[in-house]
Amino acid sequence: MRRKYTIPTAEAGRRDTEAIADLTLSDFLGGGVPLNLSCGFGLRNYQIAYETYGTLNAERSNAILVCHALTGDQFVARPNPVTGRAPWWPTMVGPGRPVDTDAYYVICSNVLGGCMGSAGPGAINQETSARWGASFPMVSITDMVRAQKALIDHLGVPRLHAVVGGSMGGMQALEWLRLYPGLLDRAVLLATASRQGAQGIAFHEAGRQAIMNDPHWAKGDYYDADIGPEKGLAVARMIAHITYLSEAKLEEKFGRRYQGRNFKTYSLDSDFQAESYLRHQGAAFTERFDANSYLYLTRACDYFDQAESHGGDLAAVYEECFRVNKPRVCLISYDSDWAYPPSESDRIENALRQAGVEVVPGAMASSEGHDAFLLPHDEAEGLVRYFLNQHK
Amino acid sequence: MRRKYTIPTAEAGRRDTEAIADLTLSDFLGGGVPLNLSCGFGLRNYQIAYETYGTLNAERSNAILVCHALTGDQFVARPNPVTGRAPWWPTMVGPGRPVDTDAYYVICSNVLGGCMGSAGPGAINQETSARWGASFPMVSITDMVRAQKALIDHLGVPRLHAVVGGSMGGMQALEWLRLYPGLLDRAVLLATASRQGAQGIAFHEAGRQAIMNDPHWAKGDYYDADIGPEKGLAVARMIAHITYLSEAKLEEKFGRRYQGRNFKTYSLDSDFQAESYLRHQGAAFTERFDANSYLYLTRACDYFDQAESHGGDLAAVYEECFRVNKPRVCLISYDSDWAYPPSESDRIENALRQAGVEVVPGAMASSEGHDAFLLPHDEAEGLVRYFLNQHK
Repeated sequence: MRRKYTIPTAEAGRRDTEAIADLTLSDFLGGGVPLNLSCGFGLRNYQIAYETYGTLNAERSNAILVCHALTGDQFVARPNPVTGRAPWWPTMVGPGRPVDTDAYYVICSNVLGGCMGSAGPGAINQETSARWGASFPMVSITDMVRAQKALIDHLGVPRLHAVVGGSMGGMQALEWLRLYPGLLDRAVLLATASRQGAQGIAFHEAGRQAIMNDPHWAKGDYYDADIGPEKGLAVARMIAHITYLSEAKLEEKFGRRYQGRNFKTYSLDSDFQAESYLRHQGAAFTERFDANSYLYLTRACDYFDQAESHGGDLAAVYEECFRVNKPRVCLISYDSDWAYPPSESDRIENALRQAGVEVVPGAMASSEGHDAFLLPHDEAEGLVRYFLNQHK
Repeated sequence: MRRKYTIPTAEAGRRDTEAIADLTLSDFLGGGVPLNLSCGFGLRNYQIAYETYGTLNAERSNAILVCHALTGDQFVARPNPVTGRAPWWPTMVGPGRPVDTDAYYVICSNVLGGCMGSAGPGAINQETSARWGASFPMVSITDMVRAQKALIDHLGVPRLHAVVGGSMGGMQALEWLRLYPGLLDRAVLLATASRQGAQGIAFHEAGRQAIMNDPHWAKGDYYDADIGPEKGLAVARMIAHITYLSEAKLEEKFGRRYQGRNFKTYSLDSDFQAESYLRHQGAAFTERFDANSYLYLTRACDYFDQAESHGGDLAAVYEECFRVNKPRVCLISYDSDWAYPPSESDRIENALRQAGVEVVPGAMASSEGHDAFLLPHDEAEGLVRYFLNQHK
């Protein structure tokens, strides 16, 4: 339940779930029944923080679940009272937007392993009353989706009109399709992939090493320390941030322009706008995100590969799970996205079609790179609006 | 002069110039006449370490200067006695190779700012007898080339048959063309650019932050400490290494294959081959390279922009410097190189042609990414062989 709505002082992303629970909806799920995680651990009595937007209709048929990406949260269409940040997807979700909160009941929960009030490394282990740290079990995309399923059960939502997600949120939407094809009518996937590729794993690993090499990481046990692994986390964010922008966009945005002067300092200071922008992105990120969560969530992406159980044959996986129920799928990719490139969407599309699933593909032109899915894009918004409202 | 040729114990890349001077040719240049660096500092009595291969002919007309890349050294065609590593360009330089040491007198020197015996942050400041550390002046690509010019003067080489270099070595070859067009007959540029782009600056900066955030960096003053910033340097290398491989190559080489097992550990250990490969690359690099040099040399690349003096008009720069002398240029790029992509070579080619310079372009197909220039490539080798031997 919601308690109060004040903005606390930023604590470098290391807030505990208690502090966050005052500022968002959050419930303990599972109770005595453990959530059996992919890693084998049975997670009991786990907290899931969430926000809802709009009203569930009498038929309980208008619910849409929005899944957030790696560093997102439940505040998809409302300012985040914990960080003070603006809603992260205002173009796509809200009154009159494609995911229209005047028409739909929109649920968005913080993923398992996250740091905005859901069970994760920064949360209190209910059995020890201490924060989990690195003793928190490793979670998978599948686990995140099972926790979301428990949440909609808890909210009395019997089925979903749609699941919508981009990037890691799209991976969750893919797992919704695979695990619960009978419980959703459709899914919207943006800028995503059915597996993390080698280059993505490599960039994630470089970021994780930056965090784990930070002496203040202290094997994940830094929550009571004065200083956490903020410097390592900032480097991890810098690396990732580069992969979210297209080379052309970086060039256009910054080129070789200097920051606040028109000459070189011949030093290791940040002379270029590209540098000071990145440094700022890195530092700002540590104000809102927890390093351990970053380790866990990147790992969850790395482990994601829907075709693994069938030796890489994605179509075989889909043929199996869509034998009876065939939700419709809208599959949006952006041509300048090199983190989750259009070729990965093509791979999903081909496999879905082979399984007889109706796919509405949206190959979007954009210079924004992976970030495109979070930014205004009339064509993508129009397609999502159309797709959600057809065949109602 | 050369002293002895034994392999000392690896010291995590932090060897001093004295230890290295025993194992390579090295001379103090400049003497009383300072090398006026781009940053304004006058560098006196600076050491340049180098190797030569083959014999200077009686006419002194067969000298070729090979310029090494960011983490290369003077051991282009001979094992490095300091690190024990194999020669770094055996396919391109050596007896019977395209840069044929049976026919040419090949000079390769460690760049200014490097860590294989030339003046740099790890070298002894001759005025204080202490190691420079971060008090070493920032160097530019131009400075590296001016030091090479001093070296060939010192060696009694009046002009060069060719300058050959890839990546940062290609930047040096471009500066040779610009500064001394009358002193060289031709240049071979591989996988390079006339300026560092915004994305390259961004990746460099993420790596530098990883180093400078390492508490053992100690503002560059770590040479007498037990531990240096090896962990930060390893992360910097991991980041850079990803940019040297094509996405397709990473996928082909590692894909999502596990390392030494066939299951996930659900931990932060390196489960994937892509991860353990990168970790190994990072750790191995610290055995042979100095963190401060890494900071300085990446910075030199970032500062490189041949068109800056003319508001971005590269053709105007070339028209000016090639008014009298027009060395021939062979310009090789690789289609999967995204660090210094073919578009940057095209930019150079167009500007050179506008300045009336004869260009032999070599657009190579390769799946190896930026690393392609260091690897066997029959077509590139054939082109270099042809280009060096024509119009003799």
